Amino acid sequence: MSSGFTEVPVVRHGRTKRSATDTDELAIEEPLEIRLAWHEPPHLTPQAKSISLTMRTPGDDLALARGFLVSEGIVRHRDDVVSVEHCGPAVRADGTSNVVRLELARGATFDPARLERHFYTTSSCGVCGKTSLDAVRTTDPPALEPGSPRVRASVVHRMPTLLREAQDTFARTGGLHAAGLFDEEGTLEIAAEDVGRHNAVDKVVGRALAEGRLPARARLLMVSGRASFELVQKAVMAGIPVLAAVGAPSSLAVELAREMGLTLLGFVRDERFNVYTDAGRV
Amino acid sequence: MSSGFTEVPVVRHGRTKRSATDTDELAIEEPLEIRLAWHEPPHLTPQAKSISLTMRTPGDDLALARGFLVSEGIVRHRDDVVSVEHCGPAVRADGTSNVVRLELARGATFDPARLERHFYTTSSCGVCGKTSLDAVRTTDPPALEPGSPRVRASVVHRMPTLLREAQDTFARTGGLHAAGLFDEEGTLEIAAEDVGRHNAVDKVVGRALAEGRLPARARLLMVSGRASFELVQKAVMAGIPVLAAVGAPSSLAVELAREMGLTLLGFVRDERFNVYTDAGRV
Repeated sequence: MSSGFTEVPVVRHGRTKRSATDTDELAIEEPLEIRLAWHEPPHLTPQAKSISLTMRTPGDDLALARGFLVSEGIVRHRDDVVSVEHCGPAVRADGTSNVVRLELARGATFDPARLERHFYTTSSCGVCGKTSLDAVRTTDPPALEPGSPRVRASVVHRMPTLLREAQDTFARTGGLHAAGLFDEEGTLEIAAEDVGRHNAVDKVVGRALAEGRLPARARLLMVSGRASFELVQKAVMAGIPVLAAVGAPSSLAVELAREMGLTLLGFVRDERFNVYTDAGRV
Repeated sequence: MSSGFTEVPVVRHGRTKRSATDTDELAIEEPLEIRLAWHEPPHLTPQAKSISLTMRTPGDDLALARGFLVSEGIVRHRDDVVSVEHCGPAVRADGTSNVVRLELARGATFDPARLERHFYTTSSCGVCGKTSLDAVRTTDPPALEPGSPRVRASVVHRMPTLLREAQDTFARTGGLHAAGLFDEEGTLEIAAEDVGRHNAVDKVVGRALAEGRLPARARLLMVSGRASFELVQKAVMAGIPVLAAVGAPSSLAVELAREMGLTLLGFVRDERFNVYTDAGRV
């Protein structure tokens, strides 16, 4: 994964003494603006709009932007997006910046009014503009097939270690969440890190989209930390039938998983886990 | 603190065996809509607007709503808010609901255009509509006095345990974040829990506002988990000069703390901590 960290000076205080000034490595958090361009007859040129500002760890920005569109129900297929690139006034030498512009294919529909809601705070994290289970239902997510894939305990037991091994930055900073997409046999196919769990998931989903793998039917998504409503929603929108979290799920996460037929596993660590919703897969 | 948990059925898988169905207690996550009413001449009746939807753990909703207004720079003094109450079509028997309405005092100014930004996603967590350090500067936060309060290591060492002892729900569910306001001697004055760290902080700040304690000049704010940009921003807006986190800070959290003269402590646990920005207080 990418090297999303920076060095800062720090003074360390221990039980009895105080160190001289040292340095510490921190996870980088910077804003990313996502701009969407889409074709809307009778206009001859694409309409464009800033649709998101998220605080993210730089790296995999294009995947993050693609994944965000999947999570929001704006795109489903790789071909819905004709271009995705960094832009803006402050493009760095390596070609990246804090603004990503995506252009939808002609024929891909986008309804700005649906996104235009007068809600702009959020929670743990990023539930802006999504009111409840109702909001998810209206996005018409891909159906999850009950009983598939089969989830084996031996595979689940291995996933936390595999995800941890794929994480470069966490070991340094203790400050990044991770998300990983596994196949039924427990092979880690895509992994991503970010200060925000929901961004890490969007990065994974965006890469899966770019590789033409959505909906990711026979896959398991694993996240560090806890499982909120929003993470279940993102898994559902990507067609991923199983979500496993190192930490606890929230009540609404369980409710949405049950309603959508997603298998939700929590406290996946130390070769133990809890099954909160099953859908005939475990 | 409040009992923000619910019971759900669960199947526990251990190293070798699988339990019968058991029950598990989960942190409750439900949407809260915050509606603001304000007086705007020449209108004779108050204008009203939904300004936020957040996924929160029910309990301390009125404090959460008050604290949100402080964090957004909309109110500074207790008297700026003349009423705060649950409302909406679905008020429960105990008088609560998932909608809180606040009314500003006549003379308190509110500029809906400032909040009306076309950003509605967020990150870790809730940075909707706040673009960067610039956005914080424009809110004209209360000045933090350098060198005050003095932060003693012995006091910092005690804070995590005191905050943990005040947490009812975490012990049950493992699923809630906590925030606590301490005085210079390490006495815990206000504590709150939530699925979102930023909500827990808003609850603490909102109670401090209601008790006429803002700006909370000689106080320390402690949070479970990590310190993001947004948490530093909330501390700054409440006039709290010291923020201590159990986990790591992000790069932007350190940057904002340095610019605003806030003392930022990270990895505060096991009688150790790191000082990322000092401002002459430690």
